[in-house]
Amino acid sequence: MADKTKVLITGASGLVGGVLREGLGDKYQLSGVDRQSIPDFDLLVADSTDLEAVQPAFEGKDVVIDLASSPSDKIPWETAYGNNIRCTYNALQAASEAGVKRVIFASSNHATGMYENDKPFSDIVAGRYEGLDPQSIPRIEVTWPVRPDGPYGIAKAFGEAAGRYFSDEFGLSVICLRIGTLNAESRPQSPRHFATLLTHRDLVHLVDRCIQAPDDIEFAIFYGVSNNTWRFWDISNSEKLVGYQPQDNAEQWR
Amino acid sequence: MADKTKVLITGASGLVGGVLREGLGDKYQLSGVDRQSIPDFDLLVADSTDLEAVQPAFEGKDVVIDLASSPSDKIPWETAYGNNIRCTYNALQAASEAGVKRVIFASSNHATGMYENDKPFSDIVAGRYEGLDPQSIPRIEVTWPVRPDGPYGIAKAFGEAAGRYFSDEFGLSVICLRIGTLNAESRPQSPRHFATLLTHRDLVHLVDRCIQAPDDIEFAIFYGVSNNTWRFWDISNSEKLVGYQPQDNAEQWR
Repeated sequence: MADKTKVLITGASGLVGGVLREGLGDKYQLSGVDRQSIPDFDLLVADSTDLEAVQPAFEGKDVVIDLASSPSDKIPWETAYGNNIRCTYNALQAASEAGVKRVIFASSNHATGMYENDKPFSDIVAGRYEGLDPQSIPRIEVTWPVRPDGPYGIAKAFGEAAGRYFSDEFGLSVICLRIGTLNAESRPQSPRHFATLLTHRDLVHLVDRCIQAPDDIEFAIFYGVSNNTWRFWDISNSEKLVGYQPQDNAEQWR
Repeated sequence: MADKTKVLITGASGLVGGVLREGLGDKYQLSGVDRQSIPDFDLLVADSTDLEAVQPAFEGKDVVIDLASSPSDKIPWETAYGNNIRCTYNALQAASEAGVKRVIFASSNHATGMYENDKPFSDIVAGRYEGLDPQSIPRIEVTWPVRPDGPYGIAKAFGEAAGRYFSDEFGLSVICLRIGTLNAESRPQSPRHFATLLTHRDLVHLVDRCIQAPDDIEFAIFYGVSNNTWRFWDISNSEKLVGYQPQDNAEQWR
């Protein structure tokens, strides 16, 4: 039997990390790096702002899922700068130097969140559907210019630009996932979530598809969102490139 | 007679700053902020990485030309992170808080420099023109995804994303200039420069047009390049939006 693919998860103790450990633990040889330990999980306790401290965790890994980041989209600039931007660059550098083949970077929908101030997105996130046909609403594509909605989103846009550089310069395959609304309940908690929800099941499927994706994907950006009726992010590129086919639709909880 | 528009130049002592002080000093009420003083020029000596130290320079200004940055495109990540990213964010924040109307951010062609690895750009920058018609080469547009060619370019891509945020969130007008090759000689020094040169005269004209541009320009990105025969950056948007009409062509020095 072939050895399992070795996958490192940075920030493995967080919400997304927990979902991925649960969902991918049987299929891959998982390990982690985090500031805190996780019982019964192969993890290096280190702070991702410290490149040298985290580097050993990257050695010998095939794929890195880079989640290390302050997870709130409300963080001030000081946190985005002092923590998130540093963690992201360090993960790319450590992965590149260790010869990792691919980094799956947890970007965020907040890299383009300001589009939600424009119609019809502003109506959809408020749950105002009058006059709107979900079959014909525009969908934000990953080729649209970034419009971060705060320092958190700026740091994610930075990470995508840095990822592109590492891909172009060092041949590191980088896939950026602009994750939608991933919450502990895995169901909508507000009108906006009927558009933006990403269920645990669909997240695990998406990341699995990105791990399995062809080696010739040098760089890509995908929105991570379930197949919600009111979804306004385009996911046709991830369906085409990696076979992403979300199974859930937030309407099932309406 | 109406008061002159008050224009602050950060990093005023550098090469670009010197060209702008010379070219715009009669038309506008210029001032500066820089780590070093400039004889006979109204300047606050302060380091742009220190927000509180530079804030007084922004008070009462109409327009800020943000040049403060380590200028070499070869800087390591530590410098891009510790200096350039901080300086850029601080300028946006200080300008926004001071009620400045517009920031003209000195971005760089290095935010998209990796396209030069692709044909036909790779041939043009090497001076290999066989089989190429300058009338029909593709031109890189500002809507193309960023492809930074190093930490310097990553920091510039970051600055554009941050600028978009300040524009969307705080109503600050932000114009990002992806400056081409601006050198002391104001003429080509290598085969690449026949494509990328921006003469002093054309730079002054471009910045002047951006200062004069309509208030309703919320955010824009322009390539700053002279009207070179082998130019591969699109400038039709700056011609349309602010009336940029470069006068020089690098071929005059062939």
